Amino acid sequence: MNTKEDAINLHRMLKGKIEIHNKVSVENIFDEETGTLGLIYTPGVAYVATEIYNNKELVYDYTSKWNNVAIVCDGTRVLGLGNIGPEGALPVMEGKSVLFKILGGINAFPLCIATREKDEIIGFVKAIEPVFGAINIEDIESPKVFDIIKRLQNELSIPVFHDDQHGTAVITLAALINSLNLVNKKIDGIMVVISGAGSAGYGIFKILKKAGCKDIIVIDSKGAIYEGREGLKDDDSEGKEGEDVRYSGNTSKYEISRKSNPRKLRGNLADTIRGADVFVGVSGRAGLLNTEMVKSMNQDAIIFALSNPDPEILPPDALKAGARIAATGRSDFPNQINNAVVFPSVLRALLDTRAKGLDEEMLVAASYAIASLLERPHLKEDYIIPKVNDPRILPIVVKTLKDAIKSHINNYDDRMALQKT
Amino acid sequence: MNTKEDAINLHRMLKGKIEIHNKVSVENIFDEETGTLGLIYTPGVAYVATEIYNNKELVYDYTSKWNNVAIVCDGTRVLGLGNIGPEGALPVMEGKSVLFKILGGINAFPLCIATREKDEIIGFVKAIEPVFGAINIEDIESPKVFDIIKRLQNELSIPVFHDDQHGTAVITLAALINSLNLVNKKIDGIMVVISGAGSAGYGIFKILKKAGCKDIIVIDSKGAIYEGREGLKDDDSEGKEGEDVRYSGNTSKYEISRKSNPRKLRGNLADTIRGADVFVGVSGRAGLLNTEMVKSMNQDAIIFALSNPDPEILPPDALKAGARIAATGRSDFPNQINNAVVFPSVLRALLDTRAKGLDEEMLVAASYAIASLLERPHLKEDYIIPKVNDPRILPIVVKTLKDAIKSHINNYDDRMALQKT
Repeated sequence: MNTKEDAINLHRMLKGKIEIHNKVSVENIFDEETGTLGLIYTPGVAYVATEIYNNKELVYDYTSKWNNVAIVCDGTRVLGLGNIGPEGALPVMEGKSVLFKILGGINAFPLCIATREKDEIIGFVKAIEPVFGAINIEDIESPKVFDIIKRLQNELSIPVFHDDQHGTAVITLAALINSLNLVNKKIDGIMVVISGAGSAGYGIFKILKKAGCKDIIVIDSKGAIYEGREGLKDDDSEGKEGEDVRYSGNTSKYEISRKSNPRKLRGNLADTIRGADVFVGVSGRAGLLNTEMVKSMNQDAIIFALSNPDPEILPPDALKAGARIAATGRSDFPNQINNAVVFPSVLRALLDTRAKGLDEEMLVAASYAIASLLERPHLKEDYIIPKVNDPRILPIVVKTLKDAIKSHINNYDDRMALQKT
Repeated sequence: MNTKEDAINLHRMLKGKIEIHNKVSVENIFDEETGTLGLIYTPGVAYVATEIYNNKELVYDYTSKWNNVAIVCDGTRVLGLGNIGPEGALPVMEGKSVLFKILGGINAFPLCIATREKDEIIGFVKAIEPVFGAINIEDIESPKVFDIIKRLQNELSIPVFHDDQHGTAVITLAALINSLNLVNKKIDGIMVVISGAGSAGYGIFKILKKAGCKDIIVIDSKGAIYEGREGLKDDDSEGKEGEDVRYSGNTSKYEISRKSNPRKLRGNLADTIRGADVFVGVSGRAGLLNTEMVKSMNQDAIIFALSNPDPEILPPDALKAGARIAATGRSDFPNQINNAVVFPSVLRALLDTRAKGLDEEMLVAASYAIASLLERPHLKEDYIIPKVNDPRILPIVVKTLKDAIKSHINNYDDRMALQKT
């Protein structure tokens, strides 16, 4: 099997991995007496359009909006490839659309857009809100993307899911819950080092925090992030004239600096990993974690080396150096930490509940639901998370999030979180 | 049959008339050895993405772009309903997508957008260019839409089709060609009165002009448009402060004033219709044309009363008053002038040739191709244009436009009109 040749040949043959089909029977559509054309198009559709105009909520009942998700990508941070542009991103997002359909029954349309400007991307997503029940933001460079997500979550009435951040966070926490179960440690007693402070690192930091983890150190290219580190700002909106705000300090790192690293550790990975219980690698740097570092960790170390295609350390090396559990993002090792477990099921739940938003509590609930699918004796060191095609994922995540959203309403009277249950 | 009730019930049952399907076989997609997931998604798709990044044209070969059309609508001028908003427009555009698929084999995705600002709409369409092989602009209010079309046609590398303008123009000219054949008149010798100067009126004016018609009078709400009429400007870009530029003079009417009405006729419809050979109604005003006016027309008058759902005159009344041929936009009378004959076939041709643009010459060629499908004895007063589901439409329009585009290249060395034939 030659992956490159096979992939290119398959794409050349398919000429696109998705297409639009009609749900309406078209057999007799043009019959003058009984044809449906007069109902689905002019003149009949005018009555449908008028009803929606008078009650906008009916757009969920009379059109495909209830099941439509937009995959929005500007092509700046695609897979491990970086800024390959919207055309280069399109086959990737079509692949994502295939997974949305198979695993979640969702119509996900890939919108790879020819603008990289933050305000234009925000304006674009706001413009498409009428057609979609939820938005999936994908492979947009950070820190720009954090601001985009924050603004969209505030300004839209449909949920905005950021797969690089939320999807990775949910599956990582699910894997961690089961790993801690195996090594008999509790989440509020462990020390975690996260290498990488982009979308994935920030998302994992936030969900671990929400799940009760108290000792997290996040490392970026300059070393451990700690409160007061030079260059961290509480505002990345503009920056000084001439300064490239995309690479300057940003609000997410400022937030990390204030809410992590309680002992204010400084230094590089080798300095900070000593005594840690968990390493989470989302650095994009192959081979970053060496066996010496693994040996310096606490007993029963857990290693999630998630950079793709080349992880921070290969699982056999990590295990040989004393780690108890090793996971990667790859399908050719055990324990693939794959957000395809997450995005179809979470989006399905958001669509089905017509949720208006998404919060950390819902994400944590999804992690526990996914983790709960594996119990001893099935749960073991080389099987810590369900496979992506486990048919139990969709129902349990949907049920859990429906309950979480309902309890939101009951507990916090936060009726704005939902349009309709 | 109760159209309103039936239409609403059908839409409630369908919950959307279109959906996204996978073209790739998903049966064994997750198999570790032979599964296609590793080819259509990570890691295999990275090779495909990289090839496109290195040669952007390959996006036509490896993704669905070659067959994707965006239906872009801001909801301001939907059917006969006016400004019903993007949500109200969505079921209409889904119906249009169904027709694109049945009649042209095209994936047309409805993008009903939540902005009415000209520059934002232009920016929006420019942003989606990477994903689509062509754009179909639909039901956006005029004159704003003229500027949008002009700018997009200049600034995009894919064709921009404006159905209200181009689709209506092509089918109207096709119907006129066959009508003139029946009454033995030539297009360069007739007098035509067009009532309505919106998208349809402007489009019909332009195509008739291009087809050789010399005596056209266009009437708007203020009466006949003539050179020098007060309020016509050669620039509608801004207007004076406080002036509503949407309803002030605009470039399209200025253009009409300079290129039509050679005798500078003034006055209302009754004043100008006297002696005319052809009436084309796209005024949106039911019953505008009365029998007295028809009687005042030239012998063998041709009446196209196209306003929907209520035409300027009902065909039986027009014929009783002496007209030789009567047509409407409705399916319950003979001679339905329906742009569903046009948009699927013309867009199919534009996609298949990877045309970069669209010009009047191509539109005229499409009209002659459609008209040619009916010959005597089939061609007669109550059968002047092929039915929308005539299976000969698609092949003849596609062949004709392919030839037109090729001859462009040969005659004018206008290689920019095409990326690839």
